[in-house]
Amino acid sequence: MKLSEGVEWGAHCAVLLSVLPSGAALPAGRLAEYHEAPVAYLAKHLQALSRAGILEAVPGPHGGYRLARPATGITLLEIVEAIDGARPPFRCTDLRSRGPAGVPASQFRTMCGIHRAMVEADELWREHLRTVTVADLAVGAASGSSPEAVEKFVNWFQEVLP
Amino acid sequence: MKLSEGVEWGAHCAVLLSVLPSGAALPAGRLAEYHEAPVAYLAKHLQALSRAGILEAVPGPHGGYRLARPATGITLLEIVEAIDGARPPFRCTDLRSRGPAGVPASQFRTMCGIHRAMVEADELWREHLRTVTVADLAVGAASGSSPEAVEKFVNWFQEVLP
Repeated sequence: MKLSEGVEWGAHCAVLLSVLPSGAALPAGRLAEYHEAPVAYLAKHLQALSRAGILEAVPGPHGGYRLARPATGITLLEIVEAIDGARPPFRCTDLRSRGPAGVPASQFRTMCGIHRAMVEADELWREHLRTVTVADLAVGAASGSSPEAVEKFVNWFQEVLP
Repeated sequence: MKLSEGVEWGAHCAVLLSVLPSGAALPAGRLAEYHEAPVAYLAKHLQALSRAGILEAVPGPHGGYRLARPATGITLLEIVEAIDGARPPFRCTDLRSRGPAGVPASQFRTMCGIHRAMVEADELWREHLRTVTVADLAVGAASGSSPEAVEKFVNWFQEVLP
């Protein structure tokens, strides 16, 4: 079981975009440069985040991507689901209805216990990621950084913003 | 993100084996027949469950697989991890150390917030599956079955056990 690598890139991009000055945007090429990501690969994930209403593509010479909504209202779960999909990792194929002792699903009084436990575990996973916003992640990233990291970050920002 | 299909087969096999009479075992072929699973495919997962100390292979003409331990002590999580592995679905590639603003991981005071949230969500997922035992699943399967399902099950058992 593995989440798409794009989830990590997408979440980091959203955090970076959350600290842009109001009105500013960053092109996919700059986001790729910042994270050392292959730009064609990253572009696909940025488009998925746009389709999900998390990012917004701004046209024009100073265009690029910015957050489509305040960072306080974008959850890590939304980013995960935009990039990796919202399907739970366990896919019940209804084994109870197969084989020599199988009976139609309608004859069971309860959901299969294996399926139910998997659905419950998946809900706990999603619930937790729903409590974490891009704003939380940005605050944590800033407070967890060393002075050198902050300085490099500010220098890069001054270089790339118009 | 998707769990191996073998998790579903493995969990159902463990539940079936938990209701065998003491000392009895079922060969891979019978387990495959019961679940309408391809036997070569299922055999691979049964071997993984044996290596993990969940099942035990009994040699001889009436041999086959049986639970290696009481069903009350085998959790759904153990079955998941035996078949799908125990690696969390999110793989942090340490993006904070890359690119024009990257600094060595040692310079960060805290774990990356994205990684931390993913680890916490994964722990909740695993904790839940750790609370569900094969015995719980067997009791649930019996109480959720219709009289017809129970009858077909008992008939099959009488046919296949020596």
